[in-house]
Amino acid sequence: MVGAGRASERADLLAAEEPLGIRIGGQAATLTMRTPGDDIDLAAGFLLAEGIVAGPADISAIRICSGEQCGHGEHEGTGNVADVTLRPGRDWQPARRGFLTTSACGVCGRASIDDLRAAGRYDLTADQVRVGAALLTALPDRLREAQRVFDRTGGLHAAGLFGADGGLLVIREDVGRHNAVDKVLGWALRAGRLPLSGCVLLVSGRASFELVQKAVVAGIPVLAAVSAPSSLAAELADETGLTLVGFLRGGSMNVYAHPQRVVSD
Amino acid sequence: MVGAGRASERADLLAAEEPLGIRIGGQAATLTMRTPGDDIDLAAGFLLAEGIVAGPADISAIRICSGEQCGHGEHEGTGNVADVTLRPGRDWQPARRGFLTTSACGVCGRASIDDLRAAGRYDLTADQVRVGAALLTALPDRLREAQRVFDRTGGLHAAGLFGADGGLLVIREDVGRHNAVDKVLGWALRAGRLPLSGCVLLVSGRASFELVQKAVVAGIPVLAAVSAPSSLAAELADETGLTLVGFLRGGSMNVYAHPQRVVSD
Repeated sequence: MVGAGRASERADLLAAEEPLGIRIGGQAATLTMRTPGDDIDLAAGFLLAEGIVAGPADISAIRICSGEQCGHGEHEGTGNVADVTLRPGRDWQPARRGFLTTSACGVCGRASIDDLRAAGRYDLTADQVRVGAALLTALPDRLREAQRVFDRTGGLHAAGLFGADGGLLVIREDVGRHNAVDKVLGWALRAGRLPLSGCVLLVSGRASFELVQKAVVAGIPVLAAVSAPSSLAAELADETGLTLVGFLRGGSMNVYAHPQRVVSD
Repeated sequence: MVGAGRASERADLLAAEEPLGIRIGGQAATLTMRTPGDDIDLAAGFLLAEGIVAGPADISAIRICSGEQCGHGEHEGTGNVADVTLRPGRDWQPARRGFLTTSACGVCGRASIDDLRAAGRYDLTADQVRVGAALLTALPDRLREAQRVFDRTGGLHAAGLFGADGGLLVIREDVGRHNAVDKVLGWALRAGRLPLSGCVLLVSGRASFELVQKAVVAGIPVLAAVSAPSSLAAELADETGLTLVGFLRGGSMNVYAHPQRVVSD
C-alpha cells in the first residue's frame, strides 16, 4: 500500500476470477470470466437467460468437470468446465444461441428488443405486487450484510433476490454482475421457483440492458440497482412491464419505469 | 425520485446503451452493448485486443453503416454495425477469433494465460518508465474532470490514457468498461501510437483479467484502477510485467504487481 508518503507491504485478499466454459451436448456454448462457486447455478442461469431452456425439465444434467472427464487430459482437475446435457428433444444450435449473439441482422436495438419480447414467457404486466419505498431503501444494507466476501476484497458484485416483504431469498456474488444475476436465476430455476412473481432483484452495480433482460426472462417484476441504469435498460423495462429502480442508496431512489409497484409505507 | 417520504417527477439523463455489431469481411464477429460514439475506435480496439490485427496496416477500412449499405433494408440508418475490411492476406476465422472465445479446450485459466502470453507482441518488462506515487493519486480527479457525461448520468465508465508526466492523452467513456478501454486502444492503433510505452491507463472501475489483457496487448506498462483487481488480473499482470495498481483513491493505492515503476516523488 502506498499513501501519504509512506509505503508498506501486506497481503491483500483478492476476488477470485477464473474462466468457466459452458458446453452443451459437447459443443462450446460460451466462456465467461467468473468467480468460482455456484457454477451449476451459473450455467443453469445462463441457459435460462439465453432462452436455451425454459424450465428445469429441459435440463437432464449439468456436470462440473475436471480434466479427464471432459477429455482434457492435459488440464485435469480445473473444474472450469460446465458440461450441460439437455433433455432429449430439446434442441440447441451453436449458430443461434440467444438474441444477444447476432446472426445476419438483429443488431439494431429495435430488433434485439423485439427478439426479447418474443422470447419472454412471463407477462410481467400481470404482476400486481406492491413494494414499500421505505422497505426498498433498506435492501442495499441488507445485501451488504449478507455478502460474505465483498467487504474483504471490495471486488465482487452481488445480486440478491428478495420477497415483497423484504426477506432475502438468495444472494450470489461474482466479479461480473451478469454472472451474479445468472447465479440467482439458475438457483431459482433449479429450485422450481420460476416465475419469480412478487420478487425484487437487487444488484450492487448499474442496471444494463442485459440485467433487465435477465430479470424479465425469470419473471421478476422489480429490478433495483444501487447505481445508474442505461437508456436501453429503461426502455426495455418500460416495454416489458418491469419496475426499474436506480440509484437506490442513501434513503432515496429513482424509478425509471412502472412506478406503480413502489408505494409509500 | 422517491426519498424521505416524498416523491417527485423529473426528467433524468441516462447513459446511452445500444448494441454494436462488428462484422469482419461480411461475417458477424461480435455484438457488444455500448454507448454510441467513437465506434470506429471501439471496433479497432476490439480487433487489436482479440489479436485479429497487430497494427493499423492490417485494417483496410472500418465503416459504420446504416441499414441499406449493410444490406439490412428493414433497419436502415441505425449506425449500429461496424463493417471491417482487413488488408488482403490478413486472415480471420470466425471459429477462432481470440483466446477468450474458446474452442475445444483452452477453458482453464492456465491455457488462457498461455495463449495470451503467446499473443503478446510487446515485452513490458523492457519498459523502464517510472511514475511518481503522488502524481498517480492525482489522476482519478483529472479523469473525472475530463469526463463529459459521467457527472450527469452517473452511468458511464471511463478509461483515460496518461503520459508518465500525468498529461492526459485521451479519454473514452462507455457503459461497459471493456468498451471504454477498447476505444482507447483503437484510438492509439489508428493514431499509429502502438506500443503505448511509458503510458498509464486509468480505469474508473475494477481491474479484471480482460482489462489487464487489453493493456498488455497495447504495450501499456501501468494499469491503474479506482477499485479492486481480481485474482487473475493480478496473476496475469505479474506474469506479463505489467504494473497493476488498485484502489487508487483518497490519496493512496495498492500495487499488486511490479511495484518498481511506482516511485516516491
